Amino acid sequence: MSGGSPTRELAERIVRSEPLKEAKVAEAVRAAMLDWLASAMAAASDPGAAMLLSALGIGAEGRGAGASSILGFRYRASATDAALVNGYLSHALDYDDVHESVRGHPSAVLLSALLAEAEERGSSGAELIAAYAVGAETMCRLGLALGSRHYEAGWHSTSTLGTLGAAAACARLTGLDVEATIRALGLAATQSGGLRVHFGSAVKPLHAGMAARAGLFAARLAATGFAGAEEPLAGPIGFLSLFGGEGTSPERVVEAWGQPWQIVEPGLWFKPYPCCSAAHHAADAALAIRSESGFAAEKVVRAEVVFPPGGDAALVVREPKTGAEGRFSAEYVVAAALADGELGIDAFSDRPIRGDLARLAAKVSRRYDAELAPAPNAMPKGRFAVLTVELADGTTRTERVDCPRGSPGRPLSAEERIAKFSDASREFPAAWRELPDRISLLETIENLSDFIPDI
Amino acid sequence: MSGGSPTRELAERIVRSEPLKEAKVAEAVRAAMLDWLASAMAAASDPGAAMLLSALGIGAEGRGAGASSILGFRYRASATDAALVNGYLSHALDYDDVHESVRGHPSAVLLSALLAEAEERGSSGAELIAAYAVGAETMCRLGLALGSRHYEAGWHSTSTLGTLGAAAACARLTGLDVEATIRALGLAATQSGGLRVHFGSAVKPLHAGMAARAGLFAARLAATGFAGAEEPLAGPIGFLSLFGGEGTSPERVVEAWGQPWQIVEPGLWFKPYPCCSAAHHAADAALAIRSESGFAAEKVVRAEVVFPPGGDAALVVREPKTGAEGRFSAEYVVAAALADGELGIDAFSDRPIRGDLARLAAKVSRRYDAELAPAPNAMPKGRFAVLTVELADGTTRTERVDCPRGSPGRPLSAEERIAKFSDASREFPAAWRELPDRISLLETIENLSDFIPDI
Repeated sequence: MSGGSPTRELAERIVRSEPLKEAKVAEAVRAAMLDWLASAMAAASDPGAAMLLSALGIGAEGRGAGASSILGFRYRASATDAALVNGYLSHALDYDDVHESVRGHPSAVLLSALLAEAEERGSSGAELIAAYAVGAETMCRLGLALGSRHYEAGWHSTSTLGTLGAAAACARLTGLDVEATIRALGLAATQSGGLRVHFGSAVKPLHAGMAARAGLFAARLAATGFAGAEEPLAGPIGFLSLFGGEGTSPERVVEAWGQPWQIVEPGLWFKPYPCCSAAHHAADAALAIRSESGFAAEKVVRAEVVFPPGGDAALVVREPKTGAEGRFSAEYVVAAALADGELGIDAFSDRPIRGDLARLAAKVSRRYDAELAPAPNAMPKGRFAVLTVELADGTTRTERVDCPRGSPGRPLSAEERIAKFSDASREFPAAWRELPDRISLLETIENLSDFIPDI
Repeated sequence: MSGGSPTRELAERIVRSEPLKEAKVAEAVRAAMLDWLASAMAAASDPGAAMLLSALGIGAEGRGAGASSILGFRYRASATDAALVNGYLSHALDYDDVHESVRGHPSAVLLSALLAEAEERGSSGAELIAAYAVGAETMCRLGLALGSRHYEAGWHSTSTLGTLGAAAACARLTGLDVEATIRALGLAATQSGGLRVHFGSAVKPLHAGMAARAGLFAARLAATGFAGAEEPLAGPIGFLSLFGGEGTSPERVVEAWGQPWQIVEPGLWFKPYPCCSAAHHAADAALAIRSESGFAAEKVVRAEVVFPPGGDAALVVREPKTGAEGRFSAEYVVAAALADGELGIDAFSDRPIRGDLARLAAKVSRRYDAELAPAPNAMPKGRFAVLTVELADGTTRTERVDCPRGSPGRPLSAEERIAKFSDASREFPAAWRELPDRISLLETIENLSDFIPDI
């Protein structure tokens, strides 16, 4: 197409494609924005947010140091600082959206970068929608090009792919040409990082903020003419080789670009529970068993979750000390769902976990089965959980989930998505609680500078 | 020592070791600071610096937005911005110091982070010296632990190791305890990045700034209590495994720590020429042949540089278009040295290279010889260049260099180091030209806030 440079071919698509021609794109971005705001607002009292603001010197003196909102706070800050903090906030509870091709979280990165830049520049809603679509497409296609080895080796793909996705999105938002977009992608690739070893800690959501900030900065620096390698992605020491190893397919970076758009098909996954998506299959199974059987939690003798091999790679915690650590524990999620019949924000706070849940979690074990055939509608592909609960009376209950609630094959209803926002915005001023109305008109907003209300 | 956690063992040494007990440590840091300032000041008119300042919004409105100096400019900025820009400036000409164990550039990262933080906090000269020593030791020991695969795979070690080194240095400077230093190292590891594919462009020096900023921010965020994994460096998906692969030796992170200090032995390498250190052997050889033989450049029929296999990995440019690209071209460096008998700042500007140098560079070829025995004093270990020049009269000249000028085995004299600074500071105000006197008293300075003069 253009002499076989994967970076150039990608940049051409970022600059020239027309995502707004597909009505479902705007619909998906509106849904993403609602869910992203809910996820960030639910985290406003997260202790890590206060630490991050303190380290950045964003303090009680309030507004005025910049044009970009810190979600849920009364501060405005520079666009780079706002991107960092909002990326953290929106991923802090692991309540934000997921995409199978990323094996991670697109909106925490993309919308944190885009809204911060759009507020400062006064971009329009339509510009933001198009920029989101190409940014998410970049994240997803790079994820498909890198292959599964990338995540398995220890990279946090939300962060590594997000840096490039945010750069692509901001390049599009700010109208960079192809040459400048190539520069932005190179500057993003060289800032890419983030280690999965930090899963279960506040550094995981920090990665989303790091990626948002780095991508935004890459596009800004690229706009000045600051230039790196002509082909930063492909080649023996390029980004794809270094981050993906031998399983990498550079041709997949642009293969089927926008046909369909990745946010339309397979689509975004909006979470009903604020915990790791890899625990959602088991969570649904546990809630179903609890709801159908109505037993008391102390009657559970043991429970076992069967995963496909590697299906629980993100669930790095076995004996959580706090609810926050429990986000990444299959044992804790199953215990909390069986005991309480719900999985709300309170179950995953940074306080020590309840004694009864710790005792129940200790009865939950994991097993792997490579023989069980995954379902065609499984999300992510090939994944499932089979939960078996054995009760004191000797009976057992078994529930299998391949396609968890909220994922594209079993989407939340519009009412459920609004309810998630309403729950998160309960203690916010009226103008914030009305954000769903503003979002429903996103395409028609001429200037996003005042999109986020004052607090 | 502490239950076998490499990160904890490293943090304990960062916090508790006493580098000032060894007089040669302060001597090395003073030399490093002089050379670092010279390298940055020589780059004040670099076009990338103006682009970077513009992208950061650091503009003509001048001083006052922060406490930390931008070297060679009239601006003060936030410590994080100053660390980023000064890291860029001091590595922009590739004129700054090198360390064999890093396979990269310690001071561009460490001093850019440390001075920015020290100016804001008012740290003392003695505190800065101790912090530099433990930061450099961290960079070097991590480089030894990662092994050669790290660089060869495509990572820019100045940046990857520098992020952790700067975090260690800033942790020490700001008095973090062991637990907070563990947090800082984890926050640094997860920000680590930087691709060697960008060598030959302005992104290479940007990496030094990225690392300085990331390390400084890691220490600040760690100070607030923001916490990640307890063991971010070792383990199957830890930093060492991900960045070093199978050749990694976690035990080398603290092995022989401070015995001797790495900045004392093997010691820092201060460059006489503003180009890649991998070209310095051939540069010395070409200057020696030119000086002894005194021939005119047009008499050269062909020239050949013999390297050990991989000895020219950093010299990624074969046909440079500009002097700046020529920094990473063995062909251009040899041609410029043979033609002009010197290698000054002007030879490596961002202007197109001279026609006579392009023609001469086209006559220079590279060859590899795995059989030639390296010299015991080779720097880096195992490296050399053998240059053979064939003249029109049929005669040849051959010169071999194992230990280049400026490297620890053949150090620049104090006068030569002062001369490098004087050359770089020619057009600066008197107070800047007197910085060598201030540096000579570094241990006695109580407060570094006003160390860098106004312009």
